[in-house]
Amino acid sequence: MGRWEPDARGRMIRAAMELFDERGFEPTTAGDIAERAGVTERTFFRHFTDKREVLFDGSKTMEQTAYDAILAAPADLSPLDAALAGMVAAGGLLEDRRDHAVRRSGIIAANPSLQERELLKLAAMTGTTAEALRTRGVAEPTASLAAHSALTVFHVAFTRWVSTEPTRFATCITEAAAALRALK
Amino acid sequence: MGRWEPDARGRMIRAAMELFDERGFEPTTAGDIAERAGVTERTFFRHFTDKREVLFDGSKTMEQTAYDAILAAPADLSPLDAALAGMVAAGGLLEDRRDHAVRRSGIIAANPSLQERELLKLAAMTGTTAEALRTRGVAEPTASLAAHSALTVFHVAFTRWVSTEPTRFATCITEAAAALRALK
Repeated sequence: MGRWEPDARGRMIRAAMELFDERGFEPTTAGDIAERAGVTERTFFRHFTDKREVLFDGSKTMEQTAYDAILAAPADLSPLDAALAGMVAAGGLLEDRRDHAVRRSGIIAANPSLQERELLKLAAMTGTTAEALRTRGVAEPTASLAAHSALTVFHVAFTRWVSTEPTRFATCITEAAAALRALK
Repeated sequence: MGRWEPDARGRMIRAAMELFDERGFEPTTAGDIAERAGVTERTFFRHFTDKREVLFDGSKTMEQTAYDAILAAPADLSPLDAALAGMVAAGGLLEDRRDHAVRRSGIIAANPSLQERELLKLAAMTGTTAEALRTRGVAEPTASLAAHSALTVFHVAFTRWVSTEPTRFATCITEAAAALRALK
């Protein structure tokens, strides 16, 4: 029956977050998540390759958003500024979902295998950002260095955003970027 | 018999590299590596938690070397310069082992699960570097930003070092650091 209801994907994500909170990540199975969401295990695996992926649902969209924003950035922006424009655009997707981001961060922090997956996603976004910069005509090693620096800003800003009182993610990015530029 | 021979650890590392080259990483088992090295599987698991760890044998030593060098750096160095002193010291451990590093990089590049492990090791070294900076009295977010930037330099320098004609790793670090500072 569940397969005919709308937003099966959203229900699986919410069910997974509940179960990871209640029972922990390791003991929770894909079958448990499917059952809680009212779908079959087969439906789960049509949407996600494994239970870790449920927590990284938006990562491809964020990567594409960053890529598009970097290519759309004014031609006279420096490589670092263009890369940061990508981070601001990607961060915009999270802006209204801070509560979700805070809970998700807690779950990831408690599970090494989720930390590994998060590092892989950040590395993928670094690669995409460098590729966007090279498409803008930025040479190596500047493209890689600007991409890594932009992701550093994103990562440090995100850590701050989910660990302090509610504030805008865009503000955290601006502050982290200023602190990065202030490094001597 | 193998257990009484010297340098069992070194033989296991060499045997693993040979087997990963010959057969690929995935099909090679810990038992295969132990057999080729002339030790028991039990001896293998006394030295390494799994077959991936064989390729990251020096990572704890590198982390400690970076940490010590950062604490030993002159007090008037900027956070970024102190962190880079740690990278130069850690890189010094690799300087005479470029052939090994090149082969190892090729094996890692071909295997996603090894790339995950490498990202975890780099994240650990970033954490240790930031901790060393905080011990020097550097506040957040500067400590994290300088640590991430230093690891960016290390990573970009390493990629260049193993992919061009033989050169000193220290030279690659100097060049990558200069390019990072040139970002606007």
